[in-house]
Amino acid sequence: MDTSYEECIKACQECMEACNQCYSACLKEDNVKMMAGCIRMDRECANICALALQAMQSNSPFVKQICNLCAEICEACGEECRKYSHDHCQKCAEACLRCAEACRKMA
Amino acid sequence: MDTSYEECIKACQECMEACNQCYSACLKEDNVKMMAGCIRMDRECANICALALQAMQSNSPFVKQICNLCAEICEACGEECRKYSHDHCQKCAEACLRCAEACRKMA
Amino acid sequence: MDTSYEECIKACQECMEACNQCYSACLKEDNVKMMAGCIRMDRECANICALALQAMQSNSPFVKQICNLCAEICEACGEECRKYSHDHCQKCAEACLRCAEACRKMA
Amino acid sequence: MDTSYEECIKACQECMEACNQCYSACLKEDNVKMMAGCIRMDRECANICALALQAMQSNSPFVKQICNLCAEICEACGEECRKYSHDHCQKCAEACLRCAEACRKMA
Repeated sequence: MDTSYEECIKACQECMEACNQCYSACLKEDNVKMMAGCIRMDRECANICALALQAMQSNSPFVKQICNLCAEICEACGEECRKYSHDHCQKCAEACLRCAEACRKMA
Repeated sequence: MDTSYEECIKACQECMEACNQCYSACLKEDNVKMMAGCIRMDRECANICALALQAMQSNSPFVKQICNLCAEICEACGEECRKYSHDHCQKCAEACLRCAEACRKMA
Repeated sequence: MDTSYEECIKACQECMEACNQCYSACLKEDNVKMMAGCIRMDRECANICALALQAMQSNSPFVKQICNLCAEICEACGEECRKYSHDHCQKCAEACLRCAEACRKMA
Repeated sequence: MDTSYEECIKACQECMEACNQCYSACLKEDNVKMMAGCIRMDRECANICALALQAMQSNSPFVKQICNLCAEICEACGEECRKYSHDHCQKCAEACLRCAEACRKMA
């Protein structure tokens, strides 16, 4: 594995975790309807982070393209989460935006 | 690929599709809160179906164990979906129960 | 689900299956070393097809971007597989190139 | 997320990484044929670790069953990797066996 991947791998691991936690917490909120967009984004973002992790860890020839797409989805998810005051959303927004930045550097 | 997998592969493809469609439709319902359990199950079930597909198609040594778990999750998802009168839930329940049966035969 | 997705979903399902079968068959060939690039591509391509399926089936807002990446990886996998005379490689190359075309239409 | 998941999440992240690195390194070895079983196990094990991570992080109702299957696959992968003297295989074997133990505690 390219050692330059380390920072981005860590960012994707943290983003995947924050998205999955936010997804689960949103489904337990009183106003689930308001969180529908956030739930959807959280799942998408966790999935592309998982794919980016597999790609970096296995030295995929498509690392740049996958990280580029991951950055785009992380940004969209971060912007969605940022709208809500729940702790899990704010924490997720931060993890997404950090991950987007790390993925941009790879891409 | 073992040709005896064909029926189960088809059932998993249809179940994955029905679950993802139900997931997306639930997030657009007026009463999203009521559908929270269904949304969660749909995602889980689509993911295990995807894993079972990869396992059968690539002749995994763990096909039996993965199909066994897939059957269990499909049953739980089918029972959850069955509770709701929405077309997408009823259609999903049928696909899940057919898939559970096909996976039980494999396992 | 958008009905215009149907053709592309079918192409992704067939490509995912052909890639996983080719992957498994390559690992059983006498000359595995020669097939290393094909093995790697098959796994990548099966994974991005699985992601594209989830995206189309769940009406992801990122369908275009994911299908665009899927097209690129399918093309690369198809070109790699095409080099080898094994039946599973030739069959996989065809499925990849059909899927690339279907994904290009979506993207 | 249940805080008791933390140790197992870390073990799955490390195992997924070690498996993907071992997979990629095996495909570059001189004797790829000898490594075919290891390549296959590495992919399986990375995939089930990814699923277990998603399950624990999103508080899936199937955490126990998924971690139980993950433990079984990690053990099989660890036993396969242990047979080979390559550094990446030995390192992967250790990560797999640690992960199997952590998953057994969850299951």
